[in-house]
Amino acid sequence: MSKVNKVVLAYSGGLDTSVILKWLQDEYQCEVVTYTADLGQGEELEPARAKAKAAGVKEIFIDDVREEFVRDFVFPMFRANTVYEGEYLLGTSIARPLIAKRLIEVARDTNADAISHGATGKGNDQVRFELGAYALNPNIQIIAPWREWDLLSREKLMAYAEKHGIPVDMKHKQGGSPYSMDANLLHISYEGRHLENPAAEAEDSMWRWSVSPEKAPDAAEYLDIEYVNGDPVSLNGQPMKAHDLLAHLNKIGGKHGVGRLDLVENRYVGMKSRGCYETPGGTILLKAHRAIESITLDREVAHLKDDLMPRYASMIYNGYWWSPERLALQTLIDHTQKTVNGWVRVKLYKGNVIVTGRDSKTNSLFDPNIATFEDDKGAYDQKDAGGFIKLNALRMRIAANLRDKK
Amino acid sequence: MSKVNKVVLAYSGGLDTSVILKWLQDEYQCEVVTYTADLGQGEELEPARAKAKAAGVKEIFIDDVREEFVRDFVFPMFRANTVYEGEYLLGTSIARPLIAKRLIEVARDTNADAISHGATGKGNDQVRFELGAYALNPNIQIIAPWREWDLLSREKLMAYAEKHGIPVDMKHKQGGSPYSMDANLLHISYEGRHLENPAAEAEDSMWRWSVSPEKAPDAAEYLDIEYVNGDPVSLNGQPMKAHDLLAHLNKIGGKHGVGRLDLVENRYVGMKSRGCYETPGGTILLKAHRAIESITLDREVAHLKDDLMPRYASMIYNGYWWSPERLALQTLIDHTQKTVNGWVRVKLYKGNVIVTGRDSKTNSLFDPNIATFEDDKGAYDQKDAGGFIKLNALRMRIAANLRDKK
Amino acid sequence: MSKVNKVVLAYSGGLDTSVILKWLQDEYQCEVVTYTADLGQGEELEPARAKAKAAGVKEIFIDDVREEFVRDFVFPMFRANTVYEGEYLLGTSIARPLIAKRLIEVARDTNADAISHGATGKGNDQVRFELGAYALNPNIQIIAPWREWDLLSREKLMAYAEKHGIPVDMKHKQGGSPYSMDANLLHISYEGRHLENPAAEAEDSMWRWSVSPEKAPDAAEYLDIEYVNGDPVSLNGQPMKAHDLLAHLNKIGGKHGVGRLDLVENRYVGMKSRGCYETPGGTILLKAHRAIESITLDREVAHLKDDLMPRYASMIYNGYWWSPERLALQTLIDHTQKTVNGWVRVKLYKGNVIVTGRDSKTNSLFDPNIATFEDDKGAYDQKDAGGFIKLNALRMRIAANLRDKK
Amino acid sequence: MSKVNKVVLAYSGGLDTSVILKWLQDEYQCEVVTYTADLGQGEELEPARAKAKAAGVKEIFIDDVREEFVRDFVFPMFRANTVYEGEYLLGTSIARPLIAKRLIEVARDTNADAISHGATGKGNDQVRFELGAYALNPNIQIIAPWREWDLLSREKLMAYAEKHGIPVDMKHKQGGSPYSMDANLLHISYEGRHLENPAAEAEDSMWRWSVSPEKAPDAAEYLDIEYVNGDPVSLNGQPMKAHDLLAHLNKIGGKHGVGRLDLVENRYVGMKSRGCYETPGGTILLKAHRAIESITLDREVAHLKDDLMPRYASMIYNGYWWSPERLALQTLIDHTQKTVNGWVRVKLYKGNVIVTGRDSKTNSLFDPNIATFEDDKGAYDQKDAGGFIKLNALRMRIAANLRDKK
Repeated sequence: MSKVNKVVLAYSGGLDTSVILKWLQDEYQCEVVTYTADLGQGEELEPARAKAKAAGVKEIFIDDVREEFVRDFVFPMFRANTVYEGEYLLGTSIARPLIAKRLIEVARDTNADAISHGATGKGNDQVRFELGAYALNPNIQIIAPWREWDLLSREKLMAYAEKHGIPVDMKHKQGGSPYSMDANLLHISYEGRHLENPAAEAEDSMWRWSVSPEKAPDAAEYLDIEYVNGDPVSLNGQPMKAHDLLAHLNKIGGKHGVGRLDLVENRYVGMKSRGCYETPGGTILLKAHRAIESITLDREVAHLKDDLMPRYASMIYNGYWWSPERLALQTLIDHTQKTVNGWVRVKLYKGNVIVTGRDSKTNSLFDPNIATFEDDKGAYDQKDAGGFIKLNALRMRIAANLRDKK
Repeated sequence: MSKVNKVVLAYSGGLDTSVILKWLQDEYQCEVVTYTADLGQGEELEPARAKAKAAGVKEIFIDDVREEFVRDFVFPMFRANTVYEGEYLLGTSIARPLIAKRLIEVARDTNADAISHGATGKGNDQVRFELGAYALNPNIQIIAPWREWDLLSREKLMAYAEKHGIPVDMKHKQGGSPYSMDANLLHISYEGRHLENPAAEAEDSMWRWSVSPEKAPDAAEYLDIEYVNGDPVSLNGQPMKAHDLLAHLNKIGGKHGVGRLDLVENRYVGMKSRGCYETPGGTILLKAHRAIESITLDREVAHLKDDLMPRYASMIYNGYWWSPERLALQTLIDHTQKTVNGWVRVKLYKGNVIVTGRDSKTNSLFDPNIATFEDDKGAYDQKDAGGFIKLNALRMRIAANLRDKK
Repeated sequence: MSKVNKVVLAYSGGLDTSVILKWLQDEYQCEVVTYTADLGQGEELEPARAKAKAAGVKEIFIDDVREEFVRDFVFPMFRANTVYEGEYLLGTSIARPLIAKRLIEVARDTNADAISHGATGKGNDQVRFELGAYALNPNIQIIAPWREWDLLSREKLMAYAEKHGIPVDMKHKQGGSPYSMDANLLHISYEGRHLENPAAEAEDSMWRWSVSPEKAPDAAEYLDIEYVNGDPVSLNGQPMKAHDLLAHLNKIGGKHGVGRLDLVENRYVGMKSRGCYETPGGTILLKAHRAIESITLDREVAHLKDDLMPRYASMIYNGYWWSPERLALQTLIDHTQKTVNGWVRVKLYKGNVIVTGRDSKTNSLFDPNIATFEDDKGAYDQKDAGGFIKLNALRMRIAANLRDKK
Repeated sequence: MSKVNKVVLAYSGGLDTSVILKWLQDEYQCEVVTYTADLGQGEELEPARAKAKAAGVKEIFIDDVREEFVRDFVFPMFRANTVYEGEYLLGTSIARPLIAKRLIEVARDTNADAISHGATGKGNDQVRFELGAYALNPNIQIIAPWREWDLLSREKLMAYAEKHGIPVDMKHKQGGSPYSMDANLLHISYEGRHLENPAAEAEDSMWRWSVSPEKAPDAAEYLDIEYVNGDPVSLNGQPMKAHDLLAHLNKIGGKHGVGRLDLVENRYVGMKSRGCYETPGGTILLKAHRAIESITLDREVAHLKDDLMPRYASMIYNGYWWSPERLALQTLIDHTQKTVNGWVRVKLYKGNVIVTGRDSKTNSLFDPNIATFEDDKGAYDQKDAGGFIKLNALRMRIAANLRDKK
């Protein structure tokens, strides 16, 4: 255990990070600075201030980073149609690098020599926090209490809290949430406990952001989304800031039962894990972005992006947002989005996101004169296809001739 | 125009291929053999026999290839979670190589020196037919009337039919279908005419295989699908042949409004094209296959498959099923499926396919003892994560130190 | 054959393009503009002017594009360590898009409606010229005489020349070169005729730019190459323009027997073809660029580049320099080169290019304190490796446990 | 430190592993089994037996695994034309998984509960040994003394040796080798100490297996290599076992100064490291294998292999030989080699490996009738190229038209 003078703690105000706050003060005999980010998780943050103050913290940072989060992290990721392992929209993964950045900035501004977080030693989040932190400040010290202490069960944690006078609310006294949860403007996630049997269906009472498709309205709702340079900029003609737009989509999507996901994913630390996610707005945007790209992106550019997407998704999932390889890929992705302008119409109905139209006044590569099944007045010479096929077949014909000779 | 003695025509019995039949007889002065495949398209095939006979055809082949189609083409493709451009399930693409193979076999058996098909010079299907045919018989002659004749508009085609006494049914007289359609056990597709404006929503009357989510039953339905070596083998405990299983899923899926798709895709011949598809069974199987893989496939194997999938999808879309590169990739894909055994439960409800559970008695790599958020009794040492992160961060720390020095 | 008023011909002044000039005037009854590029092929270009004038050409363009060629085409390609099929340095491929661009520009400036070139219908160059031209001017007409006329044998061509008073030099009268050749500042290539048996060794008399290793000097020569942003900027401390630097390297490399290549490659049009190449300067630069990257590029960035290189090489080989996908990849590649600064020392000796040293004052990521096999005073904690290995092994251990249980 | 009863040590008989032997006996109070593999490193192994016996070891295993090494590890790797980071032929990497496998087998046969090795905590070899061991026996204990003890400098190690009566030979007393070396039939490597400055040229006295190009014979030597299913099976018509063939090539290659390499590589543990390698036989085989593939492999299959090669190389470099993803890729690679039959002629001269001819009686896809620059009597219709180019250009023309409209 190396000497630490001041540590910046990623602090939610909840039980775990409150225990960590106290534990850091005691074990490291150091000053603790708290950092709390408003990522749109939908919780009051002022109670965190009060609790930190009560714990003797002198420097308390509470940040509204919602616009930065959506504009500089979520939207750039969505430009690549990013999903991890075919399904997961990376709601938790994409928030961590922003928190890592802010922790490092606060450490710099407060002359702290360490940062700390409440992520466990089994999960991906510790990796995301710490890779991000090291990439931004290679000499920062990082304290990850869950990898150091002996409070590995919930009982021990609560005993510690009670012994040290840390307030434990009713929920925890009654056994705590049956899930480990994380929320921000992009999603809310559920893991652990009741979900640890992947054969069993998740309880309907678990879901918080969306109604079930069964309980969604009987009337469908249409939405027009406008894109500029690959990013959504307005809803139904209403220009919006990035975080407002996503918040709106969450509300509308959640109302229509859109965006629930139940899957088993492969963690970077080597194990499989079952997770449930609600990503109403993100689910709509993923569909819509593919739709606007479908008419504005060149085929080979689109295929190049598709080929690289899983790798890009893994970079984000594994915590390499601040790595040089992610930045290099982002350069390519962003370059491709210059032509991604236009609008998409989607229909939301009981869990479905249905694309019903898409167009681009400035960048549509869809040419009805060529695509038509009717007479095209010579825009396309069907005879060309003969040569096209012949040359593409040539190598296979040579091989077949050789095979037949034998 | 080279000399042809006998040609095998891919014959549906419809207007287009009936005109082609006559045209081949007249233009090439050659004998025509008709080949009609039952791919589960859901049409009576005996009328095709009668029409061919009436047109003077002596060798008429009508084949039930439904089991071969699903077992040897659809299921192998599904082992890779194959979708083209993020969305299209390749229903038409995957049927063409089977037809190409059968045409070549019939040509061999009937001593024909040519084959012919009714695909236009603007589409992908001509490429798929012909690349397949050349790969299997490099010296076959191929006659693609749409690239040769001058009957490019529907009016000219009908005039030709009437002039030559080819029966034109009422549908065509009234302007024909507003869509160009193709169907087989995997899907039914709609292209052209009314769909040529990608900004406009498809008419609800177009869809044939599925009800709209709005008209689907109010009660959800659960399905258990069992997998052996990556292929589905039973539904709700009932073992089924491949094509029966897919037919069942189509029926159930269609009933619940599952599997509609409306998209703009990039054709191999270079243009964008709007297509609508109904793939009820395929949509269920795609979801379910990912789910069974999620617990039975190693992470890096799964990622390798994900990285290669778009390329594999393009091979199929572009018509390279019989190419050596597709066969090489298939070898890898099939190898990975040995452990993909177990069951998946899905819930169908108004257009949604929701995975609610998955398990594998023999091959589950999900280890609850390690994944648990609770105390794991030492199955996993959280301290290991510290070294894992440190070494993964090392290169970024060295770079950051260099940057900071400057 | 559509109506053409004026055509810009890529004109070398040699027999083939002189015949084409005449043939275009006769067949198309159109005015011909000649365009001749100095790419450093090492031939007098003024004779081309005289010949064009003699043939009645009124608009004659002769261009020194050497600097543009090396700076904007060769060097950007070398930033990716580009080789096609593991060996070919793309000397011919990379010159074609520049010529295509100039032809289109000259067509615009002279109000020509067509361009023409002397590439045959079997090779890659026709594709490279025409894809480039279409990408830059989608409505340009392209005349490719080799695909149209009946002068397919050398004898017919010479007969045509003699009949039309086109001067045929002694070389051609005696049977012509035993090879089809192409040269520019990057390489000289040999194909065809004597090389059409890939089992037979190329004759030593064929090679023009380099001595054989056997005839190279007995004394080695060292060279220091300095890189800025991934491009070489000086030799032995002497700053040079791009094309001067490459010309110098060609001379020195050729003297030391560096850069000969004898291979069978896969053409885009579907056949295999045997080619011999001399690329003295390029061979040195390929080695040197990898060496400077080895100390200045992050590992994952380098691997990303390596993974994408074959695809990028195919784009260039196949003629897609002006495509959006090449431009997108180039954006990524160029982005990575910002840190590629420093110097490399190579030793040239009888065909060998041996890297003997490399360093970067500003961007070296090589940290001797960490890499040392000696005691590093704690710069690296060897214990970290234990956790790193444990977590990387976890998924395989879980799988092995499952396997052992069975 | 967990309880260990018996440990299998990878034992070379050298100073380091002799110290480890003693240290294991003392620290773990356990029985030590020694395992020594003859990988063709060219050292007497019987002294290792004597030393082990003297140290009180009762179970001593000395294995000739040369044939298995080359046949089952080196040749499968070479089927993929494998090089790491464009240059390194993976000589050390490919031997580790075999040793890991044998350690696990000996542990099973001797009822040992642990294995141990002498690799340091900074290098790749620890990872390769341990990932291999864990994949084959997930519950094995692994003791890596370099990560545990405090003998991190050479001085401390020698002091320990002298204190415990471990014989230290003259070489070590005089400061030891200036390099850390590793040898087997594929290569000999040099790292560390004198090489830790990547700007400085390696001393010529370092190299052991090859003469310098300067000192190589003045006369070139030709070699015919025959391939069956992608593996070399005979030299100059002489059939040979795998390890004999590689040994022969090492001798001939070394004589001609072939196979030296001096590079900076990126270790899996995160740092850059300078290494020098001699791989005479491997360098010849890499060139020759590409040459035989150039005429026997389909273009797209070859490109698929090229695209995947860097990933496959990283798997081996990083120690994932026994991983499911390497096995999956190997399946694909091996499948492609069925047609790789024929011979290659190479010329060796002062460091150069020059391919001068290649042919395959059974599998050559090189068709001189099609490739010829002369009249091909219609084997290939040049007009086909027009359509081929037109359709490949279509998407770019549509985009250019759109661009021009603006």
